[in-house]
Amino acid sequence: MMASDVAAYKEARAALIDEDRSFRRDRHSIPSSDEAKADRLVREIRAAEASSIWKQEYPSIPHPFPGMEFLTGREIIVKTQLFAILSKMPKGALLHAHLDATVNASFLLKIALKQPALHVRVPQRLTASNISSILPHFRALPQNEFSNAPSLTDMSYEAETWVSLQNARGNFDISLGGPEEFDKWVIGSMMINPKEAYDTHNTIAKIWEKFISTFMVSTGLIRFAPIFPEYIREFFKTSIEDGISYIEARINFLYKHMVGIDGQENIPHRDWLLMFDDVLKEVKAEMKAQGREDEFIGARIIYTTIRFITPEELDWYLEDCIALKKEFPHLIAGFDLVGNENELKPLIDYIEPLLRFRERQKEEGLDIPFIFHAGETLGDGSVADMNLYDAILLGTKRIGHGYSLVKHPKLIDTCREKGIALEVCPISNEILRLTSSTLMHPLPILLNNGVPVALCSDDPAVFGNMGLTFDFFQVLVSSEITGLSTLSKLARDSLEHSTLDGEEKRRAITAWEKQWAKFIEEFLREHDRSTCLVA
Amino acid sequence: MMASDVAAYKEARAALIDEDRSFRRDRHSIPSSDEAKADRLVREIRAAEASSIWKQEYPSIPHPFPGMEFLTGREIIVKTQLFAILSKMPKGALLHAHLDATVNASFLLKIALKQPALHVRVPQRLTASNISSILPHFRALPQNEFSNAPSLTDMSYEAETWVSLQNARGNFDISLGGPEEFDKWVIGSMMINPKEAYDTHNTIAKIWEKFISTFMVSTGLIRFAPIFPEYIREFFKTSIEDGISYIEARINFLYKHMVGIDGQENIPHRDWLLMFDDVLKEVKAEMKAQGREDEFIGARIIYTTIRFITPEELDWYLEDCIALKKEFPHLIAGFDLVGNENELKPLIDYIEPLLRFRERQKEEGLDIPFIFHAGETLGDGSVADMNLYDAILLGTKRIGHGYSLVKHPKLIDTCREKGIALEVCPISNEILRLTSSTLMHPLPILLNNGVPVALCSDDPAVFGNMGLTFDFFQVLVSSEITGLSTLSKLARDSLEHSTLDGEEKRRAITAWEKQWAKFIEEFLREHDRSTCLVA
Repeated sequence: MMASDVAAYKEARAALIDEDRSFRRDRHSIPSSDEAKADRLVREIRAAEASSIWKQEYPSIPHPFPGMEFLTGREIIVKTQLFAILSKMPKGALLHAHLDATVNASFLLKIALKQPALHVRVPQRLTASNISSILPHFRALPQNEFSNAPSLTDMSYEAETWVSLQNARGNFDISLGGPEEFDKWVIGSMMINPKEAYDTHNTIAKIWEKFISTFMVSTGLIRFAPIFPEYIREFFKTSIEDGISYIEARINFLYKHMVGIDGQENIPHRDWLLMFDDVLKEVKAEMKAQGREDEFIGARIIYTTIRFITPEELDWYLEDCIALKKEFPHLIAGFDLVGNENELKPLIDYIEPLLRFRERQKEEGLDIPFIFHAGETLGDGSVADMNLYDAILLGTKRIGHGYSLVKHPKLIDTCREKGIALEVCPISNEILRLTSSTLMHPLPILLNNGVPVALCSDDPAVFGNMGLTFDFFQVLVSSEITGLSTLSKLARDSLEHSTLDGEEKRRAITAWEKQWAKFIEEFLREHDRSTCLVA
Repeated sequence: MMASDVAAYKEARAALIDEDRSFRRDRHSIPSSDEAKADRLVREIRAAEASSIWKQEYPSIPHPFPGMEFLTGREIIVKTQLFAILSKMPKGALLHAHLDATVNASFLLKIALKQPALHVRVPQRLTASNISSILPHFRALPQNEFSNAPSLTDMSYEAETWVSLQNARGNFDISLGGPEEFDKWVIGSMMINPKEAYDTHNTIAKIWEKFISTFMVSTGLIRFAPIFPEYIREFFKTSIEDGISYIEARINFLYKHMVGIDGQENIPHRDWLLMFDDVLKEVKAEMKAQGREDEFIGARIIYTTIRFITPEELDWYLEDCIALKKEFPHLIAGFDLVGNENELKPLIDYIEPLLRFRERQKEEGLDIPFIFHAGETLGDGSVADMNLYDAILLGTKRIGHGYSLVKHPKLIDTCREKGIALEVCPISNEILRLTSSTLMHPLPILLNNGVPVALCSDDPAVFGNMGLTFDFFQVLVSSEITGLSTLSKLARDSLEHSTLDGEEKRRAITAWEKQWAKFIEEFLREHDRSTCLVA
């Protein structure tokens, strides 16, 4: 055998690898020399940290590895140099987040405590032995119903009696840990902890029960007119700080009213949008005043309701969505149905109202794209998996999750060819037990097949993955192909596949490109000083 | 909207589903009406058991579900009607099993106890506190070295002193549980238990440490000339009882000699094959005498060594393989390199000897196909993942595992077009922590892409998935698309993609078809009596 045989083999090998990766969307952009240099440095840092920080022993973490279970690995992640780098990266758009789960639970509690109208009740007096299994029920009451009950822990507490939030906290029994433990109890009821995700609720069905329960708790605080705008403002601001420049938030319009300042459930959807619009204008103005308008292009709303309603009930929501779109054309970005696909109604059950919705839009001269959740499942040929066929046939603009898309060769081709982007939520998928670590996530299959992808956080308030840095981090450390250029393409694709149109989209992308160039430049400058840490 | 719109939609939907599944290899066979009926019944039983037996509470199983972790779910699986049905199914060929891990550990211990030459030693006296962390080291000794040491638990035991296996068992201290606990200790050292897989060793790196350790233990018993034929005989017989009609076993030829009856390490590879051939002839004759020759077509050997040797050392093994092929052309089926791909040498490191091997075969007029392990990894672009490119470029006939193949669109097409079958080992992959349950396994992606697949057990003695029934079971309950016709295609494909040639292969398939028809017939007869159980 001659050396030329080996050379010929290696040439054929390089050609095969190249062909295999030819669909990748990060193959077609030629990075600047600065970006190529930054990409190399990031790979070096990743490799160095994989064999240093991820190989150490941690008392509370039995088996650390890059891409590990997020809720256990989080405390390591935040200590890495890679995380610090990514936190400064311009992320593009956040296209898949449920508004009700976008703001830090402790912030929500803090603003709620300023509202004397907010009350809390429980089905039995809280004690040391029952506190871990009892959830708070929150609601704003009319002033004439304000409660004098002293606390949830008082011997005199009667089941389901309202206690003002401020009293419930202030008088939380010292034997249970006092106000500090009250906070932990409330915050814990709105989040998933590692023991739940990886032990007591370690199946898809069980973790969804816990997941849903967090919304039942937080809705009592968020769906209150004085809280709602503050909540949205915090969401926008923390997103901007994380490098997110545009948002399409899913809002759950299932409840037809929000509770007003008077404690009555009387604020219709139209007013929700007015509040959203006001906060949006205010934050944009503030950014402009700081000369940072490029960092926040804006935000829109994907109208959602839950897939347990009847097809007849869906008609009402579709008409409601049409009415809102007519009044707020700049705010309504699309329509979706949400909830656990494994247990609720499949899209095909709603086919009549959904087809009618398209007709109605034509009549009204509107364009409200479907942006459906579909295939958020491990099922193979299950109704949840089959939702993908309907989402695509109904012309969905993007797919929420699409976790099971990788099983469908024809649908993969369709997504690539028609530019149907997937809103991929790696940390959400892992915590909701579709995958055990980011290493098992099907994202590399999508990328190698050239399916456009936007990384998303889904429900960061519940999962603790605020912003997009954590999701980008998990993706970056879970693949040796993925580099800074891949993340750049993911960020750009999030804007490319937003519902922004012509001029707006061009502006958003141009602004992001400027941020990106600045990010690379600052990274290289910063890194030159710290080369010794890596080498 | 008109009813005709809905009808048109549903027609388009059916066409899309059909197109999406058009690569499936189970789409092209038209089942007999009996098979179609059996397929429907099996689906009914599966659905009934999913909502009965899998929804019950089990004291020792926190969260049962179909397709769950095998080591925890096993005790439920064996109680199902579906398992009883599949245990009678003709499985076709077993194409991926490492001989050293194919026979029940308790059987191995039983036959070992009949050999006075077999001895055992440990690095320190066994006590209640150290027994769970100490592994036995077995070896046959020459008669003049037979030991009189009383036991491993005796106060007088000196570290690393040999004790005869019979004494070690008979005198195992009663405070440690006596002979029964000795058996448990030895058997446990050759298997992976649920606590190890799902708790203490719950990462790929850690479980591989435990996995490798089981081979270090069992090799001392198996690699002994009086044991080896008995071991192979049991492997063949239990495989036949499970419905396996043909076997290609991977034998590890790393050690150049086996220990002979005289306690000397002096039995060369040639003699291993003679023993294999003798047992094979004997078992075939026995089956023929029983009029069951259709149930066992035969067995062949895939020559393997371990991917930690140097390229220079590999040359020796390749020449050894060629010599054995010349003498036993009917036994040597192919060549492979085994071991943890994530940590050992990639195929590309051996490219020179491997290319030379092809040349040498041409010179010798031989055909020894590569049947490489490749892509048994969660890596994306890692060396283990990249092994897939080399396996395919080197012309591998099949791929062992190919777990990461689904990330490679071009390689998937190549496997479909060239008929490169994947040896898929669902339970092995789950226990070795590539996937957390069969639900997350990429098999459905392979099937929908039309990649030929043979289900395999890999190392059933270590995992407890003896035969192929367990692997077929896990696959059947993890997908709503998969039915009896899919399993039939998988079984047939295992023969189709074996190294059997022309006439032999035809005979094997014809024999299997007869068995299959009988299986369907008996299933339908049996089932008619028990319809009430399902309905």
